[in-house]
Amino acid sequence: MTIDRTTLRWNGWGPVKQPDAIPDGAAQWDWISETLGLARLPVTKAKPLSEIRLAACRLSAETLARLSAIVGANQLRTDDYERAFHARGKSYHDLLYVRAGKLDMAPDAVIYPRSPDEVLAVVKLAAEEDIALIPYGGGSSVVGGINALAKSLGGAVVTLDTTLMTRLIQIDKIAMTATVEAGIYGPALEEALQKHGVTLSHYPQSFQYSTLGGWIAARGAGQQSNRYGKAEKWLVSAKLATPKGFWTTEATPASAAGPNLNQLVAGSEGTLGVICEATVKIHEIPARKDYRGYLFKDFATGVEAARRINHAEIPVAMVRLSDANETYFFQAFSATSQTSLKARLQRAYLRFRGFGDMPCLMLIGHEGERETVVWAQARTEAICKSLGALAIGTNAGHRWYHGRFNSPYVRDPMMDRGIGIDTLETSTRWSNIGNLHKAVTTALTEAMNANMPAEGGRGLVMAHVSHSYPDGASLYFTFVFPRQLDREIEQWQAIKRAASDAILENRGTISHHHGVGTDHAPWLAEEKGPIGYELLRSVKRELDPTGVMNPGKLLG
Amino acid sequence: MTIDRTTLRWNGWGPVKQPDAIPDGAAQWDWISETLGLARLPVTKAKPLSEIRLAACRLSAETLARLSAIVGANQLRTDDYERAFHARGKSYHDLLYVRAGKLDMAPDAVIYPRSPDEVLAVVKLAAEEDIALIPYGGGSSVVGGINALAKSLGGAVVTLDTTLMTRLIQIDKIAMTATVEAGIYGPALEEALQKHGVTLSHYPQSFQYSTLGGWIAARGAGQQSNRYGKAEKWLVSAKLATPKGFWTTEATPASAAGPNLNQLVAGSEGTLGVICEATVKIHEIPARKDYRGYLFKDFATGVEAARRINHAEIPVAMVRLSDANETYFFQAFSATSQTSLKARLQRAYLRFRGFGDMPCLMLIGHEGERETVVWAQARTEAICKSLGALAIGTNAGHRWYHGRFNSPYVRDPMMDRGIGIDTLETSTRWSNIGNLHKAVTTALTEAMNANMPAEGGRGLVMAHVSHSYPDGASLYFTFVFPRQLDREIEQWQAIKRAASDAILENRGTISHHHGVGTDHAPWLAEEKGPIGYELLRSVKRELDPTGVMNPGKLLG
Repeated sequence: MTIDRTTLRWNGWGPVKQPDAIPDGAAQWDWISETLGLARLPVTKAKPLSEIRLAACRLSAETLARLSAIVGANQLRTDDYERAFHARGKSYHDLLYVRAGKLDMAPDAVIYPRSPDEVLAVVKLAAEEDIALIPYGGGSSVVGGINALAKSLGGAVVTLDTTLMTRLIQIDKIAMTATVEAGIYGPALEEALQKHGVTLSHYPQSFQYSTLGGWIAARGAGQQSNRYGKAEKWLVSAKLATPKGFWTTEATPASAAGPNLNQLVAGSEGTLGVICEATVKIHEIPARKDYRGYLFKDFATGVEAARRINHAEIPVAMVRLSDANETYFFQAFSATSQTSLKARLQRAYLRFRGFGDMPCLMLIGHEGERETVVWAQARTEAICKSLGALAIGTNAGHRWYHGRFNSPYVRDPMMDRGIGIDTLETSTRWSNIGNLHKAVTTALTEAMNANMPAEGGRGLVMAHVSHSYPDGASLYFTFVFPRQLDREIEQWQAIKRAASDAILENRGTISHHHGVGTDHAPWLAEEKGPIGYELLRSVKRELDPTGVMNPGKLLG
Repeated sequence: MTIDRTTLRWNGWGPVKQPDAIPDGAAQWDWISETLGLARLPVTKAKPLSEIRLAACRLSAETLARLSAIVGANQLRTDDYERAFHARGKSYHDLLYVRAGKLDMAPDAVIYPRSPDEVLAVVKLAAEEDIALIPYGGGSSVVGGINALAKSLGGAVVTLDTTLMTRLIQIDKIAMTATVEAGIYGPALEEALQKHGVTLSHYPQSFQYSTLGGWIAARGAGQQSNRYGKAEKWLVSAKLATPKGFWTTEATPASAAGPNLNQLVAGSEGTLGVICEATVKIHEIPARKDYRGYLFKDFATGVEAARRINHAEIPVAMVRLSDANETYFFQAFSATSQTSLKARLQRAYLRFRGFGDMPCLMLIGHEGERETVVWAQARTEAICKSLGALAIGTNAGHRWYHGRFNSPYVRDPMMDRGIGIDTLETSTRWSNIGNLHKAVTTALTEAMNANMPAEGGRGLVMAHVSHSYPDGASLYFTFVFPRQLDREIEQWQAIKRAASDAILENRGTISHHHGVGTDHAPWLAEEKGPIGYELLRSVKRELDPTGVMNPGKLLG
């Protein structure tokens, strides 16, 4: 496989061998416990796999032999590590289970096909034998999208790991498209493309450990989606193995030959079939990148700047606006490793400039041809300054850029110390951003406060706008809280429910780029409405009549 | 109704009272007959409605009473003019029928609801009584999209004319979207929007006599789609009346809450329900428009320029490249009203510059903020000149712009004189444009030659690239030929079949912006593939289980 599973944390993020992102005894721990109102941080280490007993494999010897005949014995795995590795995704919710050793939903086997033909054979076998089949890329879903759910109690589950399918099939530099097998990881994909001078530039936070197929299945967004588009924008066509056979969607640049069926693939979350290959839009490697920071006096003014930048149709790669909490916490968090004098001087300067103690940081990224970047950067800066922003230069931009995949690494050490940390995201129209931001912040704060450990403490909420459009923008929330160690799952469910209800009540979408999976499924019917929802079900029935493809996801 | 049907030609294009676009005795007629190799042009006037007998209305008195109860007696029409007006669309193929007085597929009644609630009541009644219901906007389909086809032989047909539903419901200038009832005609829509300083800027050639709902249903493209997008791009959300009830699609700026169902509405061609309202992306009225011309030595070089302009991500509203035939014919056609000296001088200058006799004209349009237009225009011009193009200034651009809705008016006088004229369009990847252009030109030429009148003659084919994308572009073909007056339908079918087969064989889409309707339906299954095609059928079955919505269109 392209990344040997044994080198990766089965119950956390990244390589087994990585040092902790916040080492034992680091100054940050004091700051975190103080900020969360805790006298001390408990020790809550994860259970090692050696102490966990998995249920026996529910597949018959005949079925295992049939699976093995398709891919070869070496590509069919039933060992504990593979089953544990593929049991769940990487959400906070998932980690609560796997760290506690609750592996009741581990798949009965993991299969690694090496070609679309092998995938199709596995899909057909699953349909024939009524076995739940879970398409799996990097396994980085944070919404339960690849969890090894059976069709019904006691049913068998096979996880189909796509990561041996990594071929770059074709680059068309005239059309600027690439056709690639969907199991390729982000870094391998960019390496293969950049050898030819081109890039997809889809850089989600999970980039290092997620795959092309997963990005499409979940309608993901890279951090520079303003320029490169969400998955549904850069997807040109796809080849899926479905229980009905191969389905290849149209690849014409534009068409009026009926509805565009690619848009049923983007966001299908493995419920219609396995995405085996995809043709995607590529770009020349940008000659220039320019990332820099601006401080706004408040969130609303920053939102207005983001909106004006979008409406002025200035080519921009990223507009990322942290709210006052996020700006403050990130500054304070990194200030723990700064001299306090420097931090005090910075605050004094901002007060002098009339920014108060709680400004909002906006990072703007431009990528592209040199001339365009220079022209566009001057225009975005003019818009920011016209709204009273303070330009703080490229340092803040560079710092963000170089640490842009780091956040997920912070969670494991936090979870080792009784801290919960989770994120969720939505989007709405510009005029509703302020309201939705406030409603979700309030819902999260209240739900965290109502679900505190007996010894007390408090939760933190922060948010940023990370993706923007002519008609609106996304909001990405991070919330951190002391765990109720005796009811961790219930605590999370209460917080999640409160936030999700607040999103729907305030006209947000239940997800902007994480997807639906199991965790957002209870809210999907309301968002799509009864007819839209039934329509999705009818599409599913047509392609997967017996419902073996990733059961329980998306449509619940 | 917003445009009184009695003021419009029921069997042609535009107002009854308009003067002929090419008047009797105009110099152009001599040029046309010479070019088509005809000694004389026959007289082939259309049959007046007074001489045509329509079949009796097949609806029972009870059904008519029920329909009338929904909308009021005045909004239900069964007179000959209304039935004839709504019998067929505006394709050459349609005109052959209606001009010959063949009105066997006229609807039994035409109903004009004034609200979505009235539409839903009509849809439900049609489903209950198993009556074919044809959603109708401007009726400008050129692919049979609104033809009054029954569900089966002898079945009744009601046409639902949406053009009383024209309210501007909301303008959101913060999100830059407008919500509008879908029956509004192009000019009324732009008038309503421009009062508020905004524009949709969807200007198809049919703009004057087509509606918002029709543009969405057919996945249409305006002439400036490079800037404003095809219908599926500017569609934010839609409200449809379906046999299952109202279906309102999601309106969030971007989402990962499952597949984007708006993309099932765009291109649905009335087969899923009636589009009652739509929310669309709007723009500020452009402060500046700049249209100008460039001459290229050959088509391939012009295509390369169009591709480079797209890849350089320069904001451009329109890139329109005529092939050598189209450039020549338009020049020669308009030269019939020029002094021959001026025309000779122009040709001499071009030869002197090394352009030969057959250069290709490219028109480039920029629209937007003044500063952006100036910047972008300089960049497109630099690309054109780097490929050896001759800049011929803004005159050619202005001439095109002011005549941009004129072409459809030329057809009626041609049809009065034994001449056939039709258009078709496709799109493909950049690397295949030259091949597809040649293949379709050859197929059309050969099919026309094989289907000539006994007295001889020849057909003309010309084409242009009118819409372009990062990965490819559209090709729009116009073909003109002497009619075989004794087998007009068969002649057209032979030519159409040859062109459509050539498109599919050469990896084009069967339509870029006209849609599928009845005329392209035989090619849709091949383009979508068996699984995609069945998927569309399952979506149709879910929303319209008894198949009353626009039967025979899209899915055949």
